[in-house]
This record gives sequence, structure tokens and C-alpha cells, in this order.
Amino acid sequence: MSLSTTVTDARVVFTPSGKRGYFPVGTPVLQAAQALGVDVDSVCGGRGICGRCQVVQSTGNFPKHSINSKSENISQLSEVEKAYADRPKKNLKDGRRLSCATQILGDCVIDVPPDSQVHQQIVRKEADAFDIEIIPPVQLHYVEVWKPNMHDPSGDLRRLREALEREWQLTDLRFGPGMLLSLQRELRKGDWKVTVAVDYLGQVIAVNPGFKESLCGLAIDVGSTTVAAHLCNLRTGKVLASAGMMNPQIRFGEDLMSRVSYVMMHPDGDKEMTKAIRETINELAENVAKQANRELDEIVEVTFVGNPIMHHLLLGINPVELGGAPFALATDESVRIRARDLKLLLHTNTRCYVLPCIAGHVGADTAGMILSEAPHKREAMSLLVDIGTNAEIVLGNNERLLAASSPTGPAFEGAQISSGQRAAPGAIERVRIDRQTLVPKFKIIGCDLWSDESGFSAENKKIGTTGICGSGIIEAIAEMYLAGILTPDGVINGTLAENSQNIVAEGRTFSYILHDGSQHINITQNDVRAVQLAKAALYAGIRLLMERMGIETVDRIRLAGAFGNHIEPKYAMVLGLIPDCDLKQVSSAGNAAGTGARIALLNHESRNEIEEVVRQVEKVETAVESKFQQHFVSAMAFPHKTDNFPNLAKEVDLPVENVHQDSYEIASNAAKRRRRKK
Amino acid sequence: MSLSTTVTDARVVFTPSGKRGYFPVGTPVLQAAQALGVDVDSVCGGRGICGRCQVVQSTGNFPKHSINSKSENISQLSEVEKAYADRPKKNLKDGRRLSCATQILGDCVIDVPPDSQVHQQIVRKEADAFDIEIIPPVQLHYVEVWKPNMHDPSGDLRRLREALEREWQLTDLRFGPGMLLSLQRELRKGDWKVTVAVDYLGQVIAVNPGFKESLCGLAIDVGSTTVAAHLCNLRTGKVLASAGMMNPQIRFGEDLMSRVSYVMMHPDGDKEMTKAIRETINELAENVAKQANRELDEIVEVTFVGNPIMHHLLLGINPVELGGAPFALATDESVRIRARDLKLLLHTNTRCYVLPCIAGHVGADTAGMILSEAPHKREAMSLLVDIGTNAEIVLGNNERLLAASSPTGPAFEGAQISSGQRAAPGAIERVRIDRQTLVPKFKIIGCDLWSDESGFSAENKKIGTTGICGSGIIEAIAEMYLAGILTPDGVINGTLAENSQNIVAEGRTFSYILHDGSQHINITQNDVRAVQLAKAALYAGIRLLMERMGIETVDRIRLAGAFGNHIEPKYAMVLGLIPDCDLKQVSSAGNAAGTGARIALLNHESRNEIEEVVRQVEKVETAVESKFQQHFVSAMAFPHKTDNFPNLAKEVDLPVENVHQDSYEIASNAAKRRRRKK
Repeated sequence: MSLSTTVTDARVVFTPSGKRGYFPVGTPVLQAAQALGVDVDSVCGGRGICGRCQVVQSTGNFPKHSINSKSENISQLSEVEKAYADRPKKNLKDGRRLSCATQILGDCVIDVPPDSQVHQQIVRKEADAFDIEIIPPVQLHYVEVWKPNMHDPSGDLRRLREALEREWQLTDLRFGPGMLLSLQRELRKGDWKVTVAVDYLGQVIAVNPGFKESLCGLAIDVGSTTVAAHLCNLRTGKVLASAGMMNPQIRFGEDLMSRVSYVMMHPDGDKEMTKAIRETINELAENVAKQANRELDEIVEVTFVGNPIMHHLLLGINPVELGGAPFALATDESVRIRARDLKLLLHTNTRCYVLPCIAGHVGADTAGMILSEAPHKREAMSLLVDIGTNAEIVLGNNERLLAASSPTGPAFEGAQISSGQRAAPGAIERVRIDRQTLVPKFKIIGCDLWSDESGFSAENKKIGTTGICGSGIIEAIAEMYLAGILTPDGVINGTLAENSQNIVAEGRTFSYILHDGSQHINITQNDVRAVQLAKAALYAGIRLLMERMGIETVDRIRLAGAFGNHIEPKYAMVLGLIPDCDLKQVSSAGNAAGTGARIALLNHESRNEIEEVVRQVEKVETAVESKFQQHFVSAMAFPHKTDNFPNLAKEVDLPVENVHQDSYEIASNAAKRRRRKK
Repeated sequence: MSLSTTVTDARVVFTPSGKRGYFPVGTPVLQAAQALGVDVDSVCGGRGICGRCQVVQSTGNFPKHSINSKSENISQLSEVEKAYADRPKKNLKDGRRLSCATQILGDCVIDVPPDSQVHQQIVRKEADAFDIEIIPPVQLHYVEVWKPNMHDPSGDLRRLREALEREWQLTDLRFGPGMLLSLQRELRKGDWKVTVAVDYLGQVIAVNPGFKESLCGLAIDVGSTTVAAHLCNLRTGKVLASAGMMNPQIRFGEDLMSRVSYVMMHPDGDKEMTKAIRETINELAENVAKQANRELDEIVEVTFVGNPIMHHLLLGINPVELGGAPFALATDESVRIRARDLKLLLHTNTRCYVLPCIAGHVGADTAGMILSEAPHKREAMSLLVDIGTNAEIVLGNNERLLAASSPTGPAFEGAQISSGQRAAPGAIERVRIDRQTLVPKFKIIGCDLWSDESGFSAENKKIGTTGICGSGIIEAIAEMYLAGILTPDGVINGTLAENSQNIVAEGRTFSYILHDGSQHINITQNDVRAVQLAKAALYAGIRLLMERMGIETVDRIRLAGAFGNHIEPKYAMVLGLIPDCDLKQVSSAGNAAGTGARIALLNHESRNEIEEVVRQVEKVETAVESKFQQHFVSAMAFPHKTDNFPNLAKEVDLPVENVHQDSYEIASNAAKRRRRKK
């Protein structure tokens, strides 16, 4: 041994945190890490069981007078580690050590790899999205409980509390009465060794006999059309399984308002719908648990997003107040409720967290979108839009956030459109129109080929071209406009009927033939009007918020939801759904509401965050803003050359302003001429 | 007006608190009281609706320079007060004023009568018992909530919270998810005026439309034989109705251990018993609510006491661990649980408070007894005894408390006694034996006459003399002992058979004939032995605690429970059930456990008190104390002259010590002689 051995304490540096300190030779690495507040996971409390506390010794640059040579500065692989590595399904990757079973023998640099940290990051694939930091809402703690004896008549619960305090410094935990029902059995089953699941509010969720590896949570997006569930590992954040189902409430009414009407007309209508959605959630839970080979009672935490009516029906609150002015929510706070109170068949103590609603038309789904997109963390002025029967609009940055809802109606979902349909195989989703010949080509869902490519016919025979979905309508109308078939104020220009087989008169108006197969798929003048009404409502809502914010342009636009996910930003802008913006800064946000539910599931601190943000959001009720009508009227037309769309103008050749000729008359004359020719 | 009107503030003194202060002329009396922290009740927040804040102007001695003459120093009867007094069922007793509608005009003394105070006292009739201070666990608050409007999309819950903070300074209230289900309906039903019930933990229990007068609570004593319920007004503490029912679990087993055996032998036996007891509680609740003309959902708080097995079965915890060593309780903590989780059909948010258990054999009933008797508040050394199949024993004072349970067996309840029966009409409950003739007389339950009084025979024909109950056995054996029929070591002295028709041989032993009617009621040698075993167990437990405490005598003894309520202290002491003590200091504590439940119901601070006391109590497990067996053996005999029973010796002429002659042989010879004579 060298002279330096007279120095009794060894210097330890942990990476990546950079935390450092001196510890007596022989100190377990885990203990040193915990003393320094280094983020190293552990469930078993240093018993070499859980394998969570794995570290790697780094070959860092160290001062010369290290007290030991490198090969000796941490202890050799111990029997505990060998035993751990030998257990089935366990392993200790090359160079990895169990920090609880490794002693510090000299100066060393210890790296804590990401998967050994409690607070891991989930890197999100979507462009322009923040990573998700994992701060699990429920954590596991393995303890050994003292057995009862005749000399100490304390209850089993008290001895469990003592163990949790002794080994984990956990105090003031709340044990729900439900816990008591199984506590004695579980303690004895585990021979007084149990793994206790404790949530972030100090509530004990489960006492599992023996050592328990990990827990799951469910993030659920209750849409009016579909319900989606993601089963996640609460430690790693990994999505273990996903599933979606139709919202069974559809049989009570296609859209939200018809469901509220159903409640108004049927005394127990709300109860029927509450029962239906809860059953569906139970089915989804079973489905994902089965996929991931997990038991239902391993699901200990659930988060929900949904619009206000879905939110109320899920909780069992009659949504009738949301059906009429002043659209009063029962609550705009987040709700924490036991899963069993929602009749969910998960662990008996599982808790659900329902994100807060913002206003009568702006629900927990919008809160989820805000949490996912985090406009409040950015300097850039963001516009978030989630388009459904109502469009939820959020505008703002780290200084101020506004939110509103616009009544777009169901046109974007394919309803009220003559050949409209839901996005499903056979639906036209992409459209291009030749600027010269005015002949269209299109793509259908389920086939990668354009309709003019060879092979399409064969494919089409299998799938069929059955209608046009929301994104298809947007492209069709935008292309019609760019091709000059539509005037800026939305009239199908009948004068072109003379030169194009695709433009045909229908009564006093004209239609554009998109597909002339077994099913005729036309874009009618009424279709155009329906889309105009919808897009004008959306745009008017956006303008209202921009005006309130005092801005003329936004820095970035994120389109959320199924519809927002599928439309081409350029075409959305051509139609004037969204304001002018650098097209590189316009993108899809995916299922932002669902991602918000997942963030709230994996990071419990994000719940305080979104609750705080929601309280700060300024809610704008479009229905009582007189300016909304003005904006609505002026938003009916499509953007043209002299409008202020500089970014869009760079991308496409916008038509000139409508010259207000009596296009109907000209067009109908042309049509008559053509009909005579036939 | 006099010069003194230039003094702008008037001096106000409140009695009985003595609190005083200066207030501007015109200040409402209630406001002044609240500013000074005077205990004046109010539900309506000063709107002249509730009538709780009534005060009386006193004619106190006042300094000379009062700013107004007496007749003017509070305002005249206002319209609000007249309107209040005119409402049906309301009144304003002579001289009473509504303090919210009365202004201070000059110096005055205002008396707050007891019924206007939140913290009233209930004077207990039992001798030697502390009064009950009322600190209601749930209080009512009347508020006016702002209506929703389109410009403020906050949820109904948020506006209710704001009203409660604005009008009552109540913050951070917790609204259970169940509240949300009815909130919107109640708010609209009350036209945005509601009375909110808030419990002492800040949990909102109910939102009642309009003004709500008062609330009820239930105190329930779950005995193994009977279940008793008291419905109380939570403000006044008044018992509105009481009811008792047999514990339906009796059909699964007469005593506690046979019920635990039932659970061991039937997989779902615990669930059956849990269901049975909860159904009974629901029946009792309906019964008392009906008696008091209240709705079930006006019951917003429930407290429970019961022995550990009743406690566990009530909560739905399998009691099997309590059936064998080490008798581990699931929990020794108090339990707060929603009534609906116990399947009780009260208000959906009603909470139950179950008092803490002390040890495996010392339950929440003993905690209730301690709360009721409050030995921890006295300097005197108290001995509390609750005798059933097990006897719970508490010994101590304000410095130290000990508790134990002794396995007395069912003899005191009339089981294991040849003619034993439950205390019911026809059971012998009082016995006297003529010291000369050895002829007995007795009283039966249901008849006030002694058996030798004229008229008894007629009564007896109606009721019948059917057996002997616990207190009757105690008296019979004690009188037999005092009359010399029993030797100090418990042998029926057969030598007396020669002179007494009441002493007869039965095989190798003798019996004492108490009643020779249609049913023979004898006290057999076996009966005496059974009582000796029971009383020795009890006394051994008491001695163990006294020894642990380091004392030879106690200052007072309180006998609790149905049995303790009926036995004559003197006879209990003659038999040596309890140690020697000034007989004036030995008394019945009534149903102390039930009273404890009522105290916990009416005074929520008493819950902290009993939890604290229970934690401090030193638990003594008789089964593992080797000394217990010694004490048990030496406690088999009855106290005699040379024993140390100075107080008892003053009252009765104790027999001399047993001379250990072979009484059997003498006695059986005497019997033979008598039989020959016949």
C-alpha cells in the first residue's frame, strides 16, 4: 500500500450529475450516492434484490494522489452480485455493478446510467416536442416487517408503518381502509417481506407479498368517437401496450350535443352513458394488460383526458348543464378519484387523475394538449388547434395563454358533406388537380398509389373508393381553389364546365366530379359552403384570440387530433383554416391530448404544472364576443393574392381577388351550351 | 345627546367569556363577538335566518361615563328579528335578540346563553362522570354562490369554494368526487343558496339546497350480543332516538371465539358476518331516523366502538388472526372510512370514525370506556372493568395507564351455569339468604317484589322463574358464602345438609336449592367452580396490573357493561371479583363504551385525545405473564377475615379461613342420615 492509504476518506464523483464527496473506505456506493442526493433508483433498499441501482465505474481523469490504484478503488464483484446475475431474467451487463453491493475502496468516478435513475427522460420522436421527464406517481419500497409477538400487541399496520419509516424514512403515509382488508394476508404470504406501492401524495396503494419488480399505469384519452388507452411501465415510462375502441356512447348520439339531448330526453340517460364508457375502459384495460402479460391489479394509476362532456359522463356527472348557456362545468379542477369509484376493475386502491377542464367547451383534452405541447414553456407565440366538432384553440407563450372553442360543426369529420365519411379504408384522403386539364387524381386510405398510377385499379377493386374523409375534403377544396375552379368567395365556377368534364351543373349550382366509379364522389357547392362555414368558425376563433393577444402573426402552429394529424398544413392555410405562418413552423402535434394524459401519468409534478397553467389561462367565450361574428363573416372567403398571407404566397400561387362577376349566370349558360352539345 | 357621544366607540363586554372590546356605534353584535373570538354560533352567516346567534343584553354594572343611557345602548328590535320570530317553529324567547341583526349603540354587556354557543356542555347524569363538551365534527355553513355566466367559465365547484372562502374564510376544503355528482342540481335547486356541511378535517360532506337547520350523527356500540345505536343532534348533542338489536352474528356463534372458528371453517364466513352486522346497523339507522323523524341522509357522521373481533368484522377484515396467538390486530389505529364503503345507506359522503383498538383482546370498546371514564384526567387511581366473556381491565391515572384482558369465560353471562340464562324476564337477579335458616329469597327480572313478599306468587305465575342471570349468580354465591354454606375455598358445606332442606347431595357433591318451582334452580358445586374460575381470572388480571403499577390498593372502581351495570359492588367484592376499595368509590359506569362512542361523535377533539391515550397505554398480555397463573391460583378462594379487605370487612362479616376439614365426608354422612330419616 502507498503512503496515501493514511488518508481515510476516498473521493467519489458521480456522473452525469457531477455530485461529489468524500466517504470512508468501505462505504457502499449506493449509500454514498444517496448521501449526496444522486438520483439512483432502488426498490429493495440495498438488499441486492431489485437490481435497480446498477452503476458503471468510469475511467475519469483523476488527480495524481489517488489513494489507490484504479483496479482497486472499488470492491471486487461480490457474491450478492453474482447471485443477482444468476437469477432468471436478471443480468448484470458488462461492467455494470450493483451499487448497493459494491464498496468504495479509493477515489473513483461512478456513472449512473439513465436506466438506473428514477427521473429518466423519454425522448419524444415528434419534432418540436419536449422530452418527458419521468417522476413516477407511484413508487415501490421493499421492506421487512417485524413479526407480531405477544409482548408487543401493536397492529400489523403499525409495524408496517415502522418498517417503512425505518428503512425508507417514509412517514405519515395514509393507508386507505381498503388496505386493511388484505394487509394481514399479504404480510404473512410474503413472510413479512413486502413491497409497498406508495403514491406521490403519501397514499399507500398496494402491499405486495415478497419482492415486486414494477408497476403499470394507464393513460386514457376519452374521445367522443374513440377511446384510446396506453399501458405504461411507471418506472421506465415505456408504453407496454396500446388499444383503442369506439366510444360506445355513439349509440346514444353521434356527436356531443346529441348525447346531451339524449340525457335531456331520458331520465337515466347519463347513467347509461356513464356505464357504457366505464365498461369500455374496463375492456381496454383488460386488452392492454393481456397484451403486456400483466395482471389488472398491477395497474395502480390511471390518468384521463377528455372534452367536458366526456369528462362529466366518465365521472358520473350529469352533463346537462353543458348543453346550454352558460355551459357551467360542475368543476374546472382536476379530480383525483379511486378507480373503484369509477367501477374500474383494477387494483382496489388504484387512483385516477382526471386532468382539469378549462371552460364549458374547453376540456381536459385541451389541458392535455397544453401539457404535451407546453406553449407556456416557450418564448415563441404558439397556436395550438385541435379540430373536431368543436375546435379548441390555444394561443400564447410563456407570458400569457388564451383559450377558446369554436363551433366548427362536423364538416371536418366528413359529416354534412355529400360524399363524406370517416377516415377509413376506401376514403379519399389526398387530392391533386391538374391546373390545366382540371382532372383530379387522389389517394385512398389503405393504398399508397395515386389514382392515376398503374396498379391503382387493381388495388381499388379490393378496397373500393367509398367516399371522402376530412383531410380529403380540405385538399379537394384547396386544390379546386388553386386550380381556379372555386372563386375566392367559394363559388364553383360554372364557366369552366365548358372545358372540363369534371364540372357539372346540379340544379342552379355546379359540382366537381372527383371520382366517377361505382360510387360517384362529387364536391358539391353545398359541400364547399359547409367547409367554408366550418373553416370560418375556426379562423374567427383564432382571429379573436390573436386580437385579444394583440398580435398579427404567430410564430408556430401545431395541429392536434386525428384530423390535425392528417391534413397537409399548406392546404389548411390555402383554405384559411389557420393564419399565415412560415410553413416550416406548422406541423402536426399527433394525439396531443393523449400524450398529455401520458405525461400526467409518468410525471406527477406535471399535474401541478397543468393545474397551475389552466388556472392562469384566459378563457374566451366566442359565443358572447360580438367581434366573433364579424371575424366569422370576413373569414368565409378563401385567402387571395392581396390578402396578407406572405408565407403562403411564397409556397403557392394564390388566386386574385374575386371580381364579383355573376359567375352563376355565366356558368349556367356555359353548362347549357355543353348539355346541348351532348 | 350627552357629551359622551363624542366618544365614537362603545365598550362591549361578553359574558360568560368576559371577552371585551371597543367597537364603532352601529357594529352588529355578532360581528363584534366574532372579532373578539367569542363563541357564538351561526349557520347563516348573519342573515337572520338560522337564529343560532341569539344573545341577551345583561344589566351589568357599568362605569359611570357610559356613552348612552341603558335603554338606548343596543338597537331596537329590527324587522329581521320580527320576521324571524314570526316564522313557523321559530321563536325569540323573552329578551333574546339575534346578534346579527342587533347593533351596538353604546356600552353594553351581552350574554351568550349556552344554547347559542358552538361548544356547549352536556351534563352527564351518572355520578363521577365528566361532562361532555360539544365540538361538532361537522358544521353547517350557509352561503350564496355566484351564478355562472358566459364571461366567467369557472366551474360551479370553484364558485362554491369562493363563496365559502368569502363568507366563512374556509379554504382548502376537500370535495370528494361523490360531491360532484349532485353539486349542480343542489345549487340550482337552492337558487344558488346552499348550506354546506363541512367536517373537522376540511372534507365537505353535503351541499344542501337552501337553508339547513341541523345535522345528526350516530354513535354505535357493536357488542357481540347486542348492537346499540344513538342518534344525536350534532349541535346540541341531544340524543334524538336510541335503539338496540341483537347482533345477528349470534347465529354463527354465541361467543367471539366460536365466531372466529366459524370463519376458520367457512371460507366466506367473515363476509357473511360482515354483511350481517352491516345490515343490522342499517336497520338500526332506519329505526332511529324514523323515531326522530329525520331522513337517513341527514346522518352525516357515525362513530363505532366494539371489541377487536367486532371491529374487524365491521370493517370487513378477516378476524382469523385474532383467534390465536399472537392475536395480531390488522390495525390498532383509529379508522376513518366512508359510510358507503361499509355499505351503510346514509348520506353518500357520510364518514365513520372507528375508535382505535388497544391490543388483540382489548378493543375499541375499551378505548370508548377510557374516553367516557377518563381515568387519564384524574389523579385518583382508577380501576375500570368491563366484564364479558373476556374482562377488559384498565388501571391508572393521569400519569400512567395499563390495560389487559382476562379470559373470564362465559360464566358471568349465565353460560356454564346449570340454571344460567341471559338477563331476561324471569331470571333471578337478586338473592338474599337468611343467615340462620339458610332459606333464600330472590327477585326476578320483570317483578319488583322479593319472592317472600305477598303478591310475588301471582306475578311469578305470569312471568315464571326461569333461571338465574349473571348478577343473580354473583349474589347467590356471595350470600351462600356469607351464610357459611360455602367454605372460603368454594366447597358447599355438606355438613349443613342436616339442618337445611336447601342443601342437598348430588352424587359426591352438594347443591343449594334456590327455587323449587316448576323449574328447579339450584346452585351446584360445578356452578361455584365455574364462577370461581371466572372471578379468579378477572382478579388475577387486576392483580397483575396492580403489581405492574406497584400499588396495593385502588382509589376507585368503575364497573362497565351490562353485567357491571347490574351487579352489586358489595357482592362483587365479597366474591373477590374486584380488590378491596371504599365501597362508596365503587360504582357502575353504565354503558361506558357506548358513551365513549357518543363523546367521539359529539367532540371531534376527543378523537385525538383517545388516540393519544391509546398509544400511551401500556398493554399487558396476561397469557404471557408467568405471574398471571400464580395470581390465578391464589385468587380461587373467596376473601376471608384474615385477608386484607379492610373496607369490605367494615361492611360485611367475612367468614374465617377454611379449616380444611374433610367437609365432603362429613357432609355426605349428614346427607345419608337425612335420607334415612325420610
